[in-house]
Amino acid sequence: MAKEPKLAVIPLGGLGEIGKNMTAVRFGENIVLIDCGLMFPEEEMLGIDIVIPDITYLLEHKEQVLGILLTHGHEDHIGALPYVLRQINVPVYGSKLALGLVQGKLKEHNMLDQVQLNTVKPRDIIQIGPFKCEFIRVSHSIPDAMAIAIHTPVGTLLHTGDFKIDQTPVDGEVIDLPRFAALGEKGVLVMLSDSTNVERPGYTMSERVVGNTFDETFRNATERIIIATFASNVHRLQQAITMAHKYGRHVAVVGRSMVNVMQVASELGYLQIPPGTLVELDEAARLPKNKVVLLTTGSQGEPMSALTRIALGDHRQVDILPGDTVIISATPIPGNEKLVARIIDQLFKLGAKVIYEAVSGIHVSGHPSQEELKLMINLVRPKFFIPVHGEYRMLKKHAELARELGIPAENIFVGENGQVFEFTRKQGRMTGRVTSGRVLVDGLGVGDVGNIVLRDRKQLSQDGILIVVVTMDKENNQVLAGPDIVSRGFVYVRESEILMEEAKAKVKIALDKCCNRGISEWAGIKSQIRDDLGKFLYEKTRRRPMILPIIMEV
Amino acid sequence: MAKEPKLAVIPLGGLGEIGKNMTAVRFGENIVLIDCGLMFPEEEMLGIDIVIPDITYLLEHKEQVLGILLTHGHEDHIGALPYVLRQINVPVYGSKLALGLVQGKLKEHNMLDQVQLNTVKPRDIIQIGPFKCEFIRVSHSIPDAMAIAIHTPVGTLLHTGDFKIDQTPVDGEVIDLPRFAALGEKGVLVMLSDSTNVERPGYTMSERVVGNTFDETFRNATERIIIATFASNVHRLQQAITMAHKYGRHVAVVGRSMVNVMQVASELGYLQIPPGTLVELDEAARLPKNKVVLLTTGSQGEPMSALTRIALGDHRQVDILPGDTVIISATPIPGNEKLVARIIDQLFKLGAKVIYEAVSGIHVSGHPSQEELKLMINLVRPKFFIPVHGEYRMLKKHAELARELGIPAENIFVGENGQVFEFTRKQGRMTGRVTSGRVLVDGLGVGDVGNIVLRDRKQLSQDGILIVVVTMDKENNQVLAGPDIVSRGFVYVRESEILMEEAKAKVKIALDKCCNRGISEWAGIKSQIRDDLGKFLYEKTRRRPMILPIIMEV
Repeated sequence: MAKEPKLAVIPLGGLGEIGKNMTAVRFGENIVLIDCGLMFPEEEMLGIDIVIPDITYLLEHKEQVLGILLTHGHEDHIGALPYVLRQINVPVYGSKLALGLVQGKLKEHNMLDQVQLNTVKPRDIIQIGPFKCEFIRVSHSIPDAMAIAIHTPVGTLLHTGDFKIDQTPVDGEVIDLPRFAALGEKGVLVMLSDSTNVERPGYTMSERVVGNTFDETFRNATERIIIATFASNVHRLQQAITMAHKYGRHVAVVGRSMVNVMQVASELGYLQIPPGTLVELDEAARLPKNKVVLLTTGSQGEPMSALTRIALGDHRQVDILPGDTVIISATPIPGNEKLVARIIDQLFKLGAKVIYEAVSGIHVSGHPSQEELKLMINLVRPKFFIPVHGEYRMLKKHAELARELGIPAENIFVGENGQVFEFTRKQGRMTGRVTSGRVLVDGLGVGDVGNIVLRDRKQLSQDGILIVVVTMDKENNQVLAGPDIVSRGFVYVRESEILMEEAKAKVKIALDKCCNRGISEWAGIKSQIRDDLGKFLYEKTRRRPMILPIIMEV
Repeated sequence: MAKEPKLAVIPLGGLGEIGKNMTAVRFGENIVLIDCGLMFPEEEMLGIDIVIPDITYLLEHKEQVLGILLTHGHEDHIGALPYVLRQINVPVYGSKLALGLVQGKLKEHNMLDQVQLNTVKPRDIIQIGPFKCEFIRVSHSIPDAMAIAIHTPVGTLLHTGDFKIDQTPVDGEVIDLPRFAALGEKGVLVMLSDSTNVERPGYTMSERVVGNTFDETFRNATERIIIATFASNVHRLQQAITMAHKYGRHVAVVGRSMVNVMQVASELGYLQIPPGTLVELDEAARLPKNKVVLLTTGSQGEPMSALTRIALGDHRQVDILPGDTVIISATPIPGNEKLVARIIDQLFKLGAKVIYEAVSGIHVSGHPSQEELKLMINLVRPKFFIPVHGEYRMLKKHAELARELGIPAENIFVGENGQVFEFTRKQGRMTGRVTSGRVLVDGLGVGDVGNIVLRDRKQLSQDGILIVVVTMDKENNQVLAGPDIVSRGFVYVRESEILMEEAKAKVKIALDKCCNRGISEWAGIKSQIRDDLGKFLYEKTRRRPMILPIIMEV
């Protein structure tokens, strides 16, 4: 009797990190992917634009990959698609909105007509190879987010995607708890669930709460209202628009990504905009101040974003006027706290009234708190449980939660990217590992910036660089020109002329040493210069600039 | 009748920022300073070690400066002393502990015997020129913190320093509210008050709460306990030591600054250490695990700190063992959130049980929340009010709070560093401005790193550098050697040979252009190379490395 194939779950991103979510689901020689996201660079990844998952494993099994299923349209779930599809061109399945956002990306990469995009709706079931893929509505901070159940011959895998349980969603589309319950009743082999907010007790508040806060703010504002939020939070945009309409204000949109999402979302019917509400920026400038709402990007204090430019007086069309009410309808993502604080300070200095984080009800999360996570586990009662979408401590905490609810410890797996989790009808275990990791995208370069380049950027950023150039007559082992010393990011040269002259003298001594000792290999001369000069500069300045000797041969 | 001199308050640091606190108080031609602190560099101050206040104004009035009064011994209140005293050597007044910490700094700077340090106690009154300076006990996260009242002929100035109102302080030394009340009764002309936590409603919890959490943790821990906290939080150290003694554990100390503070604090009698409790690290390593507590620095995830090195397996003497309980008894300072999270994740991975921020009662702030701030304002009822020690939005919020309590809006001043606030018995106003700002300290250099150097470091950190060297025969306008191209932090050169060859070709064309057109000024040739190569590289890579052409003349 042939052995039945196993179901394998192989996370290639999203475990031990928030970002670049991507999970391979393998049955026999068939693979589908759930999500294909990017991550924003960590602080030490100097100069890097975005980070995508290492897909070596997929490239090694390219012919087995049958499709990519999207849970929703956030960057950390769709952002790597252009890079992955360029190498593995398979059909993509997702909601109308998610695919609308994907289309924009593919257009930018000139790939739009090369990719097959398939729209799915909640409760749709798609057969892909041996996988019966079912989409199930959840609540999240973007419309039409879906969990994905993959029914296989050995059992059902359920990936919650990003979710929260919002009993009063803005679009009226409540999370499909009955379907989760039904799956649970029938039996789910393994569940993967969102760990982002596992450290928070209680329930995440409904998006509707923000609408109430908007209402109060609109009622009290006497001049312009400026709302900064995530462009993709279409429900939030809807609430702002609804409120503007209620209070007789017009809405203008600032910031490229906000304009883009507004267009996609309204074209696809996700936004209800009362006629006449939306106006162009220049028209808004001519309206009375108490008739205007500006919707803008920049809620994270990103240096190039609209709100930052507005706050710094760098925006072509919008200035802050005293009396403006600015609503920062977002929480700083870890790492952005200081950027956001600085923008808030700047807005206050310009005379704006700023409503931000400290006020409760101005932002709610899109992820489930502990009670929602418990509810999900209790509804589905999976045999095996893998916490995903979280940093390591979150995965651990989520595992602990599952244990408290009665899932046996040996059926809960806390793993890392690249870990293979294998399941039969009865058993589950962590088996081998596949290649996984981070690929850095810098400009057009994908993966061409590695540790050496980053290490150099780090050193350059701390103490700058000192370049020593000498032209040598190699035959006669004689200096023809130089040494010249040029430095950048080290000291302010005009005020350090003496230091530079002394440095030059040090180099001359090092060169003489080499010539006298007959050291004529460049390598030897270079390392002599590097050592002597480095020591001298450290003594004088306690800094360690990169020292780069260049020897020209005539 | 001669006009009575005015009382002027001139903040040189601490307004619009958290850090480098320093306030000049001037009456006639006499100046005393309150505090003399440093600030840790902002993210964009690449490579900078610390930031100190610009004291140009003081140097211009050097002979008027009579002394420096310290509210307490935290870095942001004493850290700039070695730099300032080197230029303005005046007596320093502070608590035994603050001066103990100052001594350590002066020793490092070889200045110990050049400075006059005067110990003061709460309720001490010191006459300095026309200033009668009174020290008043407050609660804070370091022992013997004091507010300072300066009585002058035109009225009393009260600077709260950093404070909280702790009804159950660990050392039993309760904040001297009666004295604040008495000053209020007699009449305070102007009060400066701590704005750090003004965004928090309610009361800050007592330090005692942390002791209770320690107690519970110690009771349940079966193996080693490792506690990371701020070295200067002597009360916290005391509570850890007390708890260790209670549960029969020995304490070893890890990390240079922790060892230093423990020594200073116990020598000066601030720490009660039961005999036999303290052991050396190597002795701790030989004890049973349930008999050991390690006290360590690194609660902010600082890259070189003991806890970070321990977590990364880089510490010479300490490893994390599965079963260890690690307590991070601190809240990440804004900007450090990701560093701390990474360390927590790493500790979890090594099998430790980590108790951190999410658990309430593991850390309490040393600054007053809204209700404490209100209490202080209501006790003192100053005629004029200046919120200090806070970023701009905090100063605004604190001003709002004061208005709500009935201080007239026109008597509340939200200002910036360098602003001069002038007071007579009756009137107060913001008048002129003096020079103020940030002086960057990088290694031994004080102020030699300015905007140009930082801008270069920024560019280098993002896209690296490309150096083009050519040796020219200037007389014949001919290239003798090169162009050679060297790059660092741009691309991984071994994988970019073609790009580098193409770049070299571009430079050759640019050189030919110049030679043909007879452009022989280096400036012209350099900018031609920079433009052509920059454009080429941006097209090819979408990156903008710094391009540095160097032309050697033979």
